[in-house]
Amino acid sequence: MTSRQINRQWLLARRPEGAVKPTDFVYNEVPLPTLGEGDVLVRTLYFGYDASQRIWLTEDGGYMPPIQLGEPMRTMGIGQVVESQNTEYEVGDLVEGFMSWQAYVIARSDGPMPLRKLPKASYPLSWNLSVLGVAGLAAYFGVTEVLSVTPEDTVVVSAATGATGSLAGGIAKALGAKKVIGIAAGPEKCRWIVEKAGFDAAIDYKNESLVERLKELCPNGVSAYFDNVGGDTLDALLLHMAPQGRVLICGAMSSGYTDVQIQGPRNYMQICTQMLTVKGIHLFFYRDRLEEGAAHLACLLAEGRLGVEENVFEGFEKAPELLPTIFSGKKPGKLLLKVGEPV
Amino acid sequence: MTSRQINRQWLLARRPEGAVKPTDFVYNEVPLPTLGEGDVLVRTLYFGYDASQRIWLTEDGGYMPPIQLGEPMRTMGIGQVVESQNTEYEVGDLVEGFMSWQAYVIARSDGPMPLRKLPKASYPLSWNLSVLGVAGLAAYFGVTEVLSVTPEDTVVVSAATGATGSLAGGIAKALGAKKVIGIAAGPEKCRWIVEKAGFDAAIDYKNESLVERLKELCPNGVSAYFDNVGGDTLDALLLHMAPQGRVLICGAMSSGYTDVQIQGPRNYMQICTQMLTVKGIHLFFYRDRLEEGAAHLACLLAEGRLGVEENVFEGFEKAPELLPTIFSGKKPGKLLLKVGEPV
Repeated sequence: MTSRQINRQWLLARRPEGAVKPTDFVYNEVPLPTLGEGDVLVRTLYFGYDASQRIWLTEDGGYMPPIQLGEPMRTMGIGQVVESQNTEYEVGDLVEGFMSWQAYVIARSDGPMPLRKLPKASYPLSWNLSVLGVAGLAAYFGVTEVLSVTPEDTVVVSAATGATGSLAGGIAKALGAKKVIGIAAGPEKCRWIVEKAGFDAAIDYKNESLVERLKELCPNGVSAYFDNVGGDTLDALLLHMAPQGRVLICGAMSSGYTDVQIQGPRNYMQICTQMLTVKGIHLFFYRDRLEEGAAHLACLLAEGRLGVEENVFEGFEKAPELLPTIFSGKKPGKLLLKVGEPV
Repeated sequence: MTSRQINRQWLLARRPEGAVKPTDFVYNEVPLPTLGEGDVLVRTLYFGYDASQRIWLTEDGGYMPPIQLGEPMRTMGIGQVVESQNTEYEVGDLVEGFMSWQAYVIARSDGPMPLRKLPKASYPLSWNLSVLGVAGLAAYFGVTEVLSVTPEDTVVVSAATGATGSLAGGIAKALGAKKVIGIAAGPEKCRWIVEKAGFDAAIDYKNESLVERLKELCPNGVSAYFDNVGGDTLDALLLHMAPQGRVLICGAMSSGYTDVQIQGPRNYMQICTQMLTVKGIHLFFYRDRLEEGAAHLACLLAEGRLGVEENVFEGFEKAPELLPTIFSGKKPGKLLLKVGEPV
């Protein structure tokens, strides 16, 4: 067999207990699969890293079927079509969507989110997995439609150096929000939030009192909170929301997304007494509008109103070792692994 | 002094630990107060009982200043104006609003909710404290405006024999909701929900599996949930909401409203993955629309589309002993204490 006929893959070897470890995966080689009716064979070029991947590793799987032992690890990815039994995709097409840690994947267009054909654009290919991928799209629909941020708003974003959080703040600023505040750990990240990501202020929750800083920065309360972390941060914010404020639940990073029972917001009765509106964002509900969102984001980028921060590693062999750094990562922006070049 | 010049009152003697007890209050007599500018002296006729009263007894007080030791216990009430230094109120006017466990109270119109002048109506005076009072108004604005129930909806109401819950179900039916299900404890209450309160079905959470019954009765999920209890019931419902369903947080009866830290909804990430909308209802935000709400409710009552269930006791001396039964009460409907007759 030539290398073209061998597929390299990283399989789930054991279900992680607590934090995910590189040794929870095992390397494997198998012959390339044969295509069925409607199938598309895609050579993978980029893998995107996302905290959701930890959820898919639980017994329950969360909002998707769990990844089974012996299966390749699921990922969002960019790839290029090398063989097609589907009239919608041609050889050479660049695509983005659900893939797995394999050199070649069979991708389908009938999953929970369609395989998106990428436009021939002047911007870097990797952007389709960061600012124009799930992180950017969740930030975009979350800020514009779910929170409906306006110039009247005082916005707070947690995990503000994360792929989604940093863009949420940037999009809120682009919409003219009066004040946008990011929460992150450590002075370095907080500097980045203000100097690079365009937030008005940052709160270093590791070294400052979140409560005191919220009082100081938002004396009239927070009107819109973009929550990526849950836990104690969400509880603190619930106590500092302005009457009839809005909260967007986008993630619960503080939980680590393990099988351990998540901590519910103990101050949730503020929803009642302050008449808050708490909503979620999940891109499965926007499956028909992903291209519209990406097009709007591309405009903001072209106008220089939004920045891009990527953290790109290279080499198929690194796939498992990068996954834990999603929760411990010290660098801002979207974590990506480049595994191939388009032709 | 004549009895007219003596004021009888029940004062907070000690802050309750856990469940409130009658002995947490002490009887007292004082001379009648002198009116200041803008004051109105009201002879009390009815006291309404509400779980919120337990919150006001905590150190923190919740959404209102806590009741201090030695102060008369706060209550919603109906009374009649006997003296007025306020041009808005005349002697003889019947009023409803924040009062306290006293024979005479000085009422003001500048509190968080205005003292409402009651219309000369054909219905019983007590209705102004039950179906046309805070219980009915929270149900009314909650169902019509916050949940925006339509004929498409499958509605679930917890604490469905409570003053608010039973009316929430009745109003949802009046709006034509496809299916309205109540949750309560025991077969007797469940029978009442269906036979008297007009719900389509009831779940006896003490003797049936809430989860199994929800699956059976709402195979496509619950589109609108009116939550009066929080705790495990809210968590079970979060797992059974239809995609993009709505949840109204109106109360957290299961917590007992003590100083003990409340249990947050552990399944709150369903808000994210199912894109739920969770909102609160608090009548302070409707202070300018209470009469509008009461007028609409009076129409529903006049048309026979809504029932009234009251549980009326009599005698000023009973004020403290009825309070604990709010949490343990076996009878459906609004708990009221009659302490006087209008003249």
